Amino acid sequence: MLSTMQDVPLTVTRILNHGMRVHGTSKIITWTGEGEPHRRTFAEAGARAAQLAHALRDDLGVSGDDRVATLMWNNAEHVEAYYAAPSMGAVLHTLNLRLPADQLTWIVNHAADRVIIVNGSLLPLLAPLLPALGTVEHLVVSGPGDRSLLDGAAQQVHEYEELIAGKPTTYDWPELDERQAAAMCYTSGTTGDPKGVVYSHRSIYLHSMQVNMTQSMGLTDADTSLVVVPQFHVNAWGLPHATFMTGVNMLMPDRFLQPAPLAEMIESERPTHAAAVPTIWQGLLAELTAKPRDVSCVTQVTIGGSACPPSLMKAFDDLGMRVCHAWGMTETSPLGTVSRPPAGVEPGSDEEFAYRLTQGRFPAGVEARLSGPGGDYLPWDGESAGELEVRGPWIAGAYYGGGGADAEPLRPADKFSEDGWLKTGDVGTISPDGFLTLTDRAKDVIKSGGEWISSVDLENALMSHPDVAEAAVVAVPDEKWGERPLATVVLKEGASADFASLRSFLAEKIAKWQLPERWTIIESVPKTSVGKFDKKVLRRQYADGELDVTKL
Amino acid sequence: MLSTMQDVPLTVTRILNHGMRVHGTSKIITWTGEGEPHRRTFAEAGARAAQLAHALRDDLGVSGDDRVATLMWNNAEHVEAYYAAPSMGAVLHTLNLRLPADQLTWIVNHAADRVIIVNGSLLPLLAPLLPALGTVEHLVVSGPGDRSLLDGAAQQVHEYEELIAGKPTTYDWPELDERQAAAMCYTSGTTGDPKGVVYSHRSIYLHSMQVNMTQSMGLTDADTSLVVVPQFHVNAWGLPHATFMTGVNMLMPDRFLQPAPLAEMIESERPTHAAAVPTIWQGLLAELTAKPRDVSCVTQVTIGGSACPPSLMKAFDDLGMRVCHAWGMTETSPLGTVSRPPAGVEPGSDEEFAYRLTQGRFPAGVEARLSGPGGDYLPWDGESAGELEVRGPWIAGAYYGGGGADAEPLRPADKFSEDGWLKTGDVGTISPDGFLTLTDRAKDVIKSGGEWISSVDLENALMSHPDVAEAAVVAVPDEKWGERPLATVVLKEGASADFASLRSFLAEKIAKWQLPERWTIIESVPKTSVGKFDKKVLRRQYADGELDVTKL
Repeated sequence: MLSTMQDVPLTVTRILNHGMRVHGTSKIITWTGEGEPHRRTFAEAGARAAQLAHALRDDLGVSGDDRVATLMWNNAEHVEAYYAAPSMGAVLHTLNLRLPADQLTWIVNHAADRVIIVNGSLLPLLAPLLPALGTVEHLVVSGPGDRSLLDGAAQQVHEYEELIAGKPTTYDWPELDERQAAAMCYTSGTTGDPKGVVYSHRSIYLHSMQVNMTQSMGLTDADTSLVVVPQFHVNAWGLPHATFMTGVNMLMPDRFLQPAPLAEMIESERPTHAAAVPTIWQGLLAELTAKPRDVSCVTQVTIGGSACPPSLMKAFDDLGMRVCHAWGMTETSPLGTVSRPPAGVEPGSDEEFAYRLTQGRFPAGVEARLSGPGGDYLPWDGESAGELEVRGPWIAGAYYGGGGADAEPLRPADKFSEDGWLKTGDVGTISPDGFLTLTDRAKDVIKSGGEWISSVDLENALMSHPDVAEAAVVAVPDEKWGERPLATVVLKEGASADFASLRSFLAEKIAKWQLPERWTIIESVPKTSVGKFDKKVLRRQYADGELDVTKL
Repeated sequence: MLSTMQDVPLTVTRILNHGMRVHGTSKIITWTGEGEPHRRTFAEAGARAAQLAHALRDDLGVSGDDRVATLMWNNAEHVEAYYAAPSMGAVLHTLNLRLPADQLTWIVNHAADRVIIVNGSLLPLLAPLLPALGTVEHLVVSGPGDRSLLDGAAQQVHEYEELIAGKPTTYDWPELDERQAAAMCYTSGTTGDPKGVVYSHRSIYLHSMQVNMTQSMGLTDADTSLVVVPQFHVNAWGLPHATFMTGVNMLMPDRFLQPAPLAEMIESERPTHAAAVPTIWQGLLAELTAKPRDVSCVTQVTIGGSACPPSLMKAFDDLGMRVCHAWGMTETSPLGTVSRPPAGVEPGSDEEFAYRLTQGRFPAGVEARLSGPGGDYLPWDGESAGELEVRGPWIAGAYYGGGGADAEPLRPADKFSEDGWLKTGDVGTISPDGFLTLTDRAKDVIKSGGEWISSVDLENALMSHPDVAEAAVVAVPDEKWGERPLATVVLKEGASADFASLRSFLAEKIAKWQLPERWTIIESVPKTSVGKFDKKVLRRQYADGELDVTKL
């Protein structure tokens, strides 16, 4: 039996229209580095998005599902592109300006971007790549920067403001299928080529509703959100969309992501909420310690991207900025869990703090299961550790295959289960009340005799020894157990290697069967470009016999 | 270009599974009238929903999109039916126990209900109808009541608890199409046959998310909601679904809807939220005035169904129970607007109070427009009055046509626009920031010379005259103007009719062109069964020449 409900698609266009009309006076405030920040209302930004869409269609020939890329900081113009491209039926492609040049080139070519909207300050990064970007026909430059860098480019160069000037401020947006692509974002995988996640209008709409639910960020039009998390990073965690749904003001740092200007914009614009990865907050904390400022206006800080260290959470609590932990990834739009302690937990108690340190609770839109070492699904008992798999309307079920509308999506078996769930690559436990605690990356976990050993637990235990500067533990092949841990240790200056005593030290904290037999001293732990332990280098060095291993 | 997102349907089943798993310890508390209320966790209720589904399928033969009706109060068993029937693919049909017997019979036959789950206390209402309910094969009786009333019934009679006892507590729920019917509810239209609204899994899911958004009810698992609004009335405003999404506890009054037990359950169970129509609150206020109790635990009161009088809102504010006005109807699931004042309005100010008295602001899921007297769409200027039309994924686009899956839906032109919007029949204004103020029903508004005159404004002005007990204003045909207002006045005891002076009195408050020329004295204003002015009786009496009209 069919329902009698209206068949209204969930589209980015609806969010845009609502934000312009019902929350037209809410503001996007863009930091400019000097003097007053730039302020633009949602109504103004929406009118300019319509102008941009006219320009993209009429002047630049954007049609169908053409990809419109952005290489931009967080600012009002970037929000305009967020709405113009998807609402006209095109696909917004946010380029990660932190990626190495070769990956960026690969990504633009794979997505076959036709247009790049770029901030003038990022031209030094883009200009050298241009000869290799064969699909790109147009560059649209916004904001300050040296245009002469584009001299001789094969692409047509446009000034953003000149391009949209005089265009109609309304647009007869097409009625779109909600399952149509709206935006795409590539993961910066450390192994293999980057993978493109293509968000639909539907997934963005539903994710925005979730962000606005009380148990997620739960912001209202009385809030101003300092959106530090980049717009090129999983749609800035959905904030540019969620804010238009409920009228939350956005404070955009543009290129001023250093601790000092961040502290300054908090002090002068008084945001109530802020969102960023832990490293940003570490930097801000150091700044505030060196030069105290009143930042208590920020009553909620959403931290995701990687785990928030307890010391950082405590330090921000002391400043009156309450941290709310969240977990997600490019493939999950990203909101996967939010760590709001459950009812009945005493505020300020150790129990509450422990809940806040978990990755958080799953919302109704995200189904979760833990896949164990044997391939079975594990109970939610807070103890059984398995790889997290998730399912939901804003979770990826494939990657973009390239080649436009005819693309065959990619479904690598290590990323998607046979029944279509996303394998997150994260290993952890889930409590009976649905709180996720991550302990490891699946590729780093040691699969020993049908049980899993957490490399992170071993590393943390090792690094608490007074002689150890750093330690990385990786899985190495073992005939009897399948895999066993190899401990690689960086000693502090003046300390000498005594593996037996290190092993005894570990034995006080770690189950006996998990203790490493293989030990080696290294100069330093190899790191990735973003500073994470690069364990694949260690595994290769071991395989190639480059490490001097002692077996106990 | 297709997105790479998972194609996961939005279903009631997902809400059920989430509530059971992540919020399994949240509770449904059902008032029993004596001693301790009955408490059941979401996990327990979900397990019993699975048992009920087994019984419906295996013992009662429910299959496909069979309609499973409920004639029940708000209680845990009703919540179980809410989840069992839709999740198994059947359609829940909530019967309004306040309807006259002939309408109830008509509705059951029109929906072709196969099963009725009925509270024992409602058997006196149901038993007399049974011979006329030809499609109903099974009655499932729950809770106290005299079963002998069913002696001789043609239907098979089952005891709810016996039926589900011993059944498996899990069910392999089918994967459903989100556009499939989940539940239905008939409007009790005062004219013509009742109209069936059929909610989809999708509409219920999206509406539940909206209820949980911060700018709607915004409840969390720390809340307990006193759900006075009946489950047979637009899904109890979505609360049984929304609560399972976020773990909000439900306090269910069962048949104890009188002011004294309501006050008692607030005092003893300390709910933080309550939802009901104004008349319930009027009664509770009288009770609390007569016998004061501490009800300050209820920090939020959602009032809808009809406008909340300012005096009532003030009185509840004084008790610490803050009223939040909302507007909706059976056709809107029902959440259409919620009146949370916008940012920047001073708490406690007259401006804030004025905002709270409006019907509220549209959420992103509800598009709105005002259709003017000439058929044109009016500006959102807070002054232009038109009929409200709405569009959105939880708004009806048709009525159920009867006849099961093959039914041709009904789309009466006075209820649905050609482009598919719902014509609400409500007349009002929308402010530039999206707040709706309703002034009249479209059928009561007076269309005079291309302009609209509000019957309600004239009535309120008339009733403020010291000689007037009651007054109703209706449109009557007029050769020159199309329609003109007829003032029908009930005088206070001892007062005498002086139409000229009444007209002068009106002239101080109302524009001259809106003043009635036709006047009549009546004994009392005819009322509908729910106590509203029954203006169609007055219009008919005028047409039939039964009224003694003076023309000024």
